[in-house]
Amino acid sequence: MTHSPLPPDLETPLLLLDEGRMDANIARMQARMGALGVRFRPHVKTAKCLEVVRRQVAAGARGLTVSTLKEAERFFAAGYGDILYAVAIAPPKFDHALRLAKAGMRLTLVVESVATAERLSRHGRDNRHTHQVLIEVDTDGHRSGIRPDDPLLLEVAAVLVVDGQGGARLGGVMTHAGSSYGLNTPDALAAMAEQERAGCVHAAERLRAGGHACPVVSVGSTPTALSARHLEGVTEVRAGVYVFFDLVMAGVGVCALDDIALSVLCTVIGHRADTGWIITDGGWMAMSRDRGTQRQAKDHGYGLVAAIDGSPIPDLAFRDANQEHGVLHWTGGAGVDLARRFPIGTQLRILPNHACATGAQFDAYTVLPKDGGAIQRWDRFNGW
Amino acid sequence: MTHSPLPPDLETPLLLLDEGRMDANIARMQARMGALGVRFRPHVKTAKCLEVVRRQVAAGARGLTVSTLKEAERFFAAGYGDILYAVAIAPPKFDHALRLAKAGMRLTLVVESVATAERLSRHGRDNRHTHQVLIEVDTDGHRSGIRPDDPLLLEVAAVLVVDGQGGARLGGVMTHAGSSYGLNTPDALAAMAEQERAGCVHAAERLRAGGHACPVVSVGSTPTALSARHLEGVTEVRAGVYVFFDLVMAGVGVCALDDIALSVLCTVIGHRADTGWIITDGGWMAMSRDRGTQRQAKDHGYGLVAAIDGSPIPDLAFRDANQEHGVLHWTGGAGVDLARRFPIGTQLRILPNHACATGAQFDAYTVLPKDGGAIQRWDRFNGW
Repeated sequence: MTHSPLPPDLETPLLLLDEGRMDANIARMQARMGALGVRFRPHVKTAKCLEVVRRQVAAGARGLTVSTLKEAERFFAAGYGDILYAVAIAPPKFDHALRLAKAGMRLTLVVESVATAERLSRHGRDNRHTHQVLIEVDTDGHRSGIRPDDPLLLEVAAVLVVDGQGGARLGGVMTHAGSSYGLNTPDALAAMAEQERAGCVHAAERLRAGGHACPVVSVGSTPTALSARHLEGVTEVRAGVYVFFDLVMAGVGVCALDDIALSVLCTVIGHRADTGWIITDGGWMAMSRDRGTQRQAKDHGYGLVAAIDGSPIPDLAFRDANQEHGVLHWTGGAGVDLARRFPIGTQLRILPNHACATGAQFDAYTVLPKDGGAIQRWDRFNGW
Repeated sequence: MTHSPLPPDLETPLLLLDEGRMDANIARMQARMGALGVRFRPHVKTAKCLEVVRRQVAAGARGLTVSTLKEAERFFAAGYGDILYAVAIAPPKFDHALRLAKAGMRLTLVVESVATAERLSRHGRDNRHTHQVLIEVDTDGHRSGIRPDDPLLLEVAAVLVVDGQGGARLGGVMTHAGSSYGLNTPDALAAMAEQERAGCVHAAERLRAGGHACPVVSVGSTPTALSARHLEGVTEVRAGVYVFFDLVMAGVGVCALDDIALSVLCTVIGHRADTGWIITDGGWMAMSRDRGTQRQAKDHGYGLVAAIDGSPIPDLAFRDANQEHGVLHWTGGAGVDLARRFPIGTQLRILPNHACATGAQFDAYTVLPKDGGAIQRWDRFNGW
């Protein structure tokens, strides 16, 4: 629980960031990576915030992972030059990637098809540049990538070519076991982490056996990073949402509610005595429409309601939302005067289902400093 | 179907706006309001874009409806001074509202409780200002407001007082039959429109019978505005999403798919032959997490996939999404070579479930002009 230094009557909704919790989350992940003996390349798509990245790097991160070229561009402008764009690149983005690399960024791209690998090699050659590339490996069937045993793996590697003019150079393999988000026991998570590791290492070994250099073996997701028992053969790990954590991660079991560093501050604007509802000014525009706990054992609706000091109020269920209205249902039984207990103007903090989605609804964090100092504002960015 | 003047290889994802469809939607709504003999006050929370508001006002709109004080501020700065902030105001926003009114905005606020009405009256008096206020009426039980028959209605009116110094002046009543979004037959929609009208007019009559002036009777939602058979006693209508329409509105039955003016352009970045998936660079960050068609007869997943010319591709179901990945499932049967039919680099347009939610993921519209002229960029804003 946080002893909140919040001034009264902040205009809401706004996005609160608990600096102390975030710092503890960063330290925990970095310590774990140290113990596992791997480099850590945080995925900065969660926070999209320079102040957060500074702390991740100060704690020991080496390089960044991004989900958009805009993130690459913004963080490069701030001095971070080693960047993995972890989405298979689309041909319309080749020129943008080229501009960033020519400006001095150590940009690594991802491919997972012969078609893209061929076009990217040609694009590099045509522009006298050598694109740095990882092949995406599919270790859990949840999205994109090439299965570790698929002949396609070597076919893609074969068309990543560099001649005297340029091209695309294979630097290794990467995978993301996103299906770990659907698990909720330590054993299942450890097994998925091992599946992710073993699959990616196997892909690297096949490439090496085929005569390809494959120095980078990059794996990761927050649940697997925190659950892996060893990472033999892996050179780097990526994870993003750990920096803030959220209700989905609590449901997966890799954090406690007290670790969640992000919340939305909202204000009570009405009551419905007949239905037992409290209406707030924090609707789905503030929370996002992410209902990531819907399929978990504990469905938190649009978020977990907490008092302004951060302590959960389990009897208020955030069951419905309009664009700028939250509808909280009292589930604590009859006989409670909601208008007296949560009067108009009461401020509540809502823990989000999914930090990446909720964060993206805001252009800044209102930071609760851990040393009890003044509230700070840290900008974040969104879009492409 | 639109004959798209899109240049090839635009960097994606981006938000496309079909100007011709939007103009037709604006004209249709304004003509309907003219036929019903009411003023129209569009809700600008959908577009949050000055170019769009200009067209709404040029077509005959009188005043704007907003969901945030930021919208009020931005549109006031652009010269639109008559603004209804249609969310029950929270006390921490009183000072902000006061600043806007003192700057010359004709700002109308909404209350639905004695507590807020008392505090707002006191705030006005303390600041030598008279806040203009509507009471929110609940005509369908979906959210906030006071039931038309509830004694509370007159209690709230009684504490909206102005003395020589200032206070809060009752200007009328407003309601929003948001549960119309859950209907899908013309008769049910017409009945809901009548329920919304009758309830709001009844509330106004009770206030007048109690000695209160109640010049404004404001109702609306896109489905009821387009379904009302008469609006006797109503002075103005509000609606927002009609300007773009979306899949939810098509499911409700108040527009055709061909009326939807908004889509997300994305690019094919991969294929999974074993599962029949196409991977794109348009994930939930681009579409939003809104799954508004989930409870409708036709669930469109994260959106309806269309070719670049706007023609739907019903055999591609947008079933899953990661932050920056869309996963489209081929449902057209075996024997199709997806990589040949939708090669890497193919650009697709995704019609959104909910235009308000999808729009908010972007900071600009890429506008397809109706006259075949050059592509334009129209800025939009988000946040609070």
